[in-house]
Amino acid sequence: MSRKKNFFAGPSVLPVEVLEELHEQILDYEENGFSIIEASHRGKAFDKLYHDCLGKMRDLLKIPDNYSVFFLGGGATLQFAMIPMNFLPVGKTADYVKSGAWSNKACDDAMKLGNVRIAFDGKGSNYSSLPDPEKLSVPEDSAYLYLCSNETIGGIEWQQWPNTGDVPLIADMSSDIFSRPVPVEKFAMIYGGVQKNLGPAGATFIIIRNDMLDRIPEGLPVYLDYRTHAESDGLYNTPPVFSIWAVKLVLDWIENMGGVKAMQERALLKAGILYNVIEQSEGFYRSPVDPSFRSNMNIVFRLPTEELEAEFIKEAGLRDMLGLKGHRSVGGCRASVYNALPVSDVEELARFMEEFAARNK
Amino acid sequence: MSRKKNFFAGPSVLPVEVLEELHEQILDYEENGFSIIEASHRGKAFDKLYHDCLGKMRDLLKIPDNYSVFFLGGGATLQFAMIPMNFLPVGKTADYVKSGAWSNKACDDAMKLGNVRIAFDGKGSNYSSLPDPEKLSVPEDSAYLYLCSNETIGGIEWQQWPNTGDVPLIADMSSDIFSRPVPVEKFAMIYGGVQKNLGPAGATFIIIRNDMLDRIPEGLPVYLDYRTHAESDGLYNTPPVFSIWAVKLVLDWIENMGGVKAMQERALLKAGILYNVIEQSEGFYRSPVDPSFRSNMNIVFRLPTEELEAEFIKEAGLRDMLGLKGHRSVGGCRASVYNALPVSDVEELARFMEEFAARNK
Repeated sequence: MSRKKNFFAGPSVLPVEVLEELHEQILDYEENGFSIIEASHRGKAFDKLYHDCLGKMRDLLKIPDNYSVFFLGGGATLQFAMIPMNFLPVGKTADYVKSGAWSNKACDDAMKLGNVRIAFDGKGSNYSSLPDPEKLSVPEDSAYLYLCSNETIGGIEWQQWPNTGDVPLIADMSSDIFSRPVPVEKFAMIYGGVQKNLGPAGATFIIIRNDMLDRIPEGLPVYLDYRTHAESDGLYNTPPVFSIWAVKLVLDWIENMGGVKAMQERALLKAGILYNVIEQSEGFYRSPVDPSFRSNMNIVFRLPTEELEAEFIKEAGLRDMLGLKGHRSVGGCRASVYNALPVSDVEELARFMEEFAARNK
Repeated sequence: MSRKKNFFAGPSVLPVEVLEELHEQILDYEENGFSIIEASHRGKAFDKLYHDCLGKMRDLLKIPDNYSVFFLGGGATLQFAMIPMNFLPVGKTADYVKSGAWSNKACDDAMKLGNVRIAFDGKGSNYSSLPDPEKLSVPEDSAYLYLCSNETIGGIEWQQWPNTGDVPLIADMSSDIFSRPVPVEKFAMIYGGVQKNLGPAGATFIIIRNDMLDRIPEGLPVYLDYRTHAESDGLYNTPPVFSIWAVKLVLDWIENMGGVKAMQERALLKAGILYNVIEQSEGFYRSPVDPSFRSNMNIVFRLPTEELEAEFIKEAGLRDMLGLKGHRSVGGCRASVYNALPVSDVEELARFMEEFAARNK
């Protein structure tokens, strides 16, 4: 099997070891006489798999015991609604950091549901920078401060976290969870779609500090109330079984690779290779992002002209490198280098970038 | 590979041909050099698969052109909330048929969100019967009439549909979709989790008549507004890719087996075998369900004592027959015989039931 070099922004590359295990087990899971995707979610086989997955998530990410962990459907987009429905009561105001497409969408939903204050708006810089976390001020009576840890479209990533005191800090970490250690205890809630670093699309992980559940108003529909899921261990209704199975296998792979610290070293190595090519290109490649906040997951760059960008993407495709086109809303180029992407794929892209620049300067 | 006989109520058995195809293609999808679960949902490979899936769904179920079809996450449970949020405005009343666990849950959510009238309540019969569709009256100004076509826990299934005139008819068909022809044009909306007859858990199919979209109030959060998904062809955010792939393969299998009519014959055959054993058992086995509404998907039955029920389930398990325990809320026994369950598995269960009855009478 010849594998393409997959720089897609998500869904994206998975560890080949995970695909091989899925291939191996999908007909007959652990010799049970059924596939795990045919198993009752109330049965022993899934129960063990599920709790192994949650346990591994807790261990690897060092999630304290006073947090609930579960998976929902609907992607991060459903959480854009659930967060204000659960945590933004009438009479209170929530603070949002608008740093790009994803946090802006979250903010739009919150504005439909309650009072919102904009703690920071990156619009002026075309979403190429983030606020200094030390200087970000949040009123003491804020319902919560919301941020997106990594904006895949703009290619910017928080490197430090704001101190919000007693104000709950809520973060969408869809695109950089498990790429570095996270001080979970600083957050009231962390969530994200799994389809970047954690597994195939179809599940959203939710990590929520249990005291937050006391803030939820009565009367929410049952699926949209976080208590429903926290109180039933995430098994109130049928969970996305296949995605959870694959997440468990990805977590095994992360553990075998050395855990979250090792993932961080890997991310810094891969992103460093590409940013270095950009810096050394004498202006041929250009990062539009403030160097203090450059993403280690999504490396966004421009070439001298849009024609050269189109040619670059085309030639890369001929070399089996996929997904290098920037998001349609911003143009340019983007290389997503999630955990599972082999270092050698990044090295090959770097060589091609250098060669392409030399040829087209 | 020795396959267990899988009578689980869902997630449940899948066609072995589908599992084999997943096994075959999960490492490298159609020689693209990537797994489909690693592919961008905006890329060519997924786009073709996705539209093949939707097209096959339309063809097999004869869905008229003025309906939108797409998949969401969150299971049927999320729809319990979305339906009233979209279609039950202030000042209107929706009618609910309470026929068992699933429609009751849908009704509970609607009552949190608006005015609800109970068109029928099966509580008095312990949810063993349904209303005569011809006699079910719905006020002309009703926001909609809601029903669940098959209640998996009680084992009751609608055999005819009510005529609601201009009042929109909305049905949860999670557990019997694709087991028989459905006059889609009678319904304003049909939806359901895919994890019974259609595929692995993680996706909810939505079939919605387009004029219903005009009734949706402004201001809903983006994921919870059906227009978001109808207007973006179900690709507003990342869909549950793996589940959709498997649904496509299940639809191929249904087509190869002869389509929805053939599935109906198969369902009637399998359910008939088991109801016949019950009827012929001289009262050893007993169906608690009104014969006019017995489900062809979930055959619920009791034995003379709870001890015998426990023994029956235990001995069946020793014969590789899984999932025969009734739902924990009602007890007894239940055999779910979804589309993919081989007829021979049902025959084997029937033989065991006869033998067990003869031995324990």
